[in-house]
Amino acid sequence: MQQTNHTLHTDTNGPGLYEISSRVVNWCQKQAIQNGLLTLFIRHTSASLTIQENADPDVCHDLQDFFNQIAPQQGSYRHSAEGPDDMPAHIKTALTQTQLTIPLTHGQLALGTWQGIYVFEHRQHAQRRQVVMHLIGEDF
Amino acid sequence: MQQTNHTLHTDTNGPGLYEISSRVVNWCQKQAIQNGLLTLFIRHTSASLTIQENADPDVCHDLQDFFNQIAPQQGSYRHSAEGPDDMPAHIKTALTQTQLTIPLTHGQLALGTWQGIYVFEHRQHAQRRQVVMHLIGEDF
Amino acid sequence: MQQTNHTLHTDTNGPGLYEISSRVVNWCQKQAIQNGLLTLFIRHTSASLTIQENADPDVCHDLQDFFNQIAPQQGSYRHSAEGPDDMPAHIKTALTQTQLTIPLTHGQLALGTWQGIYVFEHRQHAQRRQVVMHLIGEDF
Repeated sequence: MQQTNHTLHTDTNGPGLYEISSRVVNWCQKQAIQNGLLTLFIRHTSASLTIQENADPDVCHDLQDFFNQIAPQQGSYRHSAEGPDDMPAHIKTALTQTQLTIPLTHGQLALGTWQGIYVFEHRQHAQRRQVVMHLIGEDF
Repeated sequence: MQQTNHTLHTDTNGPGLYEISSRVVNWCQKQAIQNGLLTLFIRHTSASLTIQENADPDVCHDLQDFFNQIAPQQGSYRHSAEGPDDMPAHIKTALTQTQLTIPLTHGQLALGTWQGIYVFEHRQHAQRRQVVMHLIGEDF
Repeated sequence: MQQTNHTLHTDTNGPGLYEISSRVVNWCQKQAIQNGLLTLFIRHTSASLTIQENADPDVCHDLQDFFNQIAPQQGSYRHSAEGPDDMPAHIKTALTQTQLTIPLTHGQLALGTWQGIYVFEHRQHAQRRQVVMHLIGEDF
């Protein structure tokens, strides 16, 4: 059994879903491990991870709308010193994922046909986000 | 350290919570691994996983009501080509889990007394859902 | 590759976010494993886990307000035999996490600067909550 890890940097430019599937898959394919477990961990509390449909881009826009309605910037929040988008960003992060773990079999992640891996940015301004990738498993 | 995996198929027949606890436990008990980590990964974006109380069936019905109210079929969505239940299904998936990881100790999953593992189906029509189970650990 | 586990008990005294970061970090530092994967699993369905900002305590209060508004005690629930706070507690648990997995590198968890690990208590009365910690990895 072996393990390896790497930090992926994603530059975001405003709220939205940024697909990282191909970068994650490419990194996995360069590792010796063929069977195991991939964990993604985002090191932030105002951006999150989600697995969603990557066929119709409207899905991502509808998701954004939903989260904006449920946690609006115009809400009444105590925490406002970091801007009106910060507390809604924390709420949206709490409602989605900070971490995702995906089995790897014969070099293939277990992702279904329509599943894409996304960084879900919740802040208004440009950010550089860090996603730690950790892979544990075997080369056979 | 060893690992093994298997895909569990669950036939669903409309929205609701389908308990898979006993099938998951049974599969684990047939493996040589006694101590380790079980990961469940659902390969879909319109059905999800959740751990919930499995004592009172009303809890599952109330959960369904809650998610139907928060993401109603009558909502205004861009993504409608796959039917009025599809975009709400993606939202409900984003709000719950695509993956669950549970420690295994002396052959027992760490599930609490009242915790059941459920496939949460969000689509109206019958579906066959795939849940990948991955177990890593040792036989002692 | 090695593994080890331990159950952390947290006494809660009403709804709110109880930070367990330092207890988790301290336990990890006492293990021989320097590189690997830490999994936290809470054995309940009316309390959950979340990773949130631990700088401004207002964030935790705003989070509580949000979840109280979205799943109010005054809601119309079938499941009421365990008190008016129980079904909202199950909903809040479904919307957050029962499990968190965090990579460990050179003895350090991958937590970002502002990330804290919290038990999110959703019940009114005092509880003793169990969080299973499982660490798999190597000592180099």
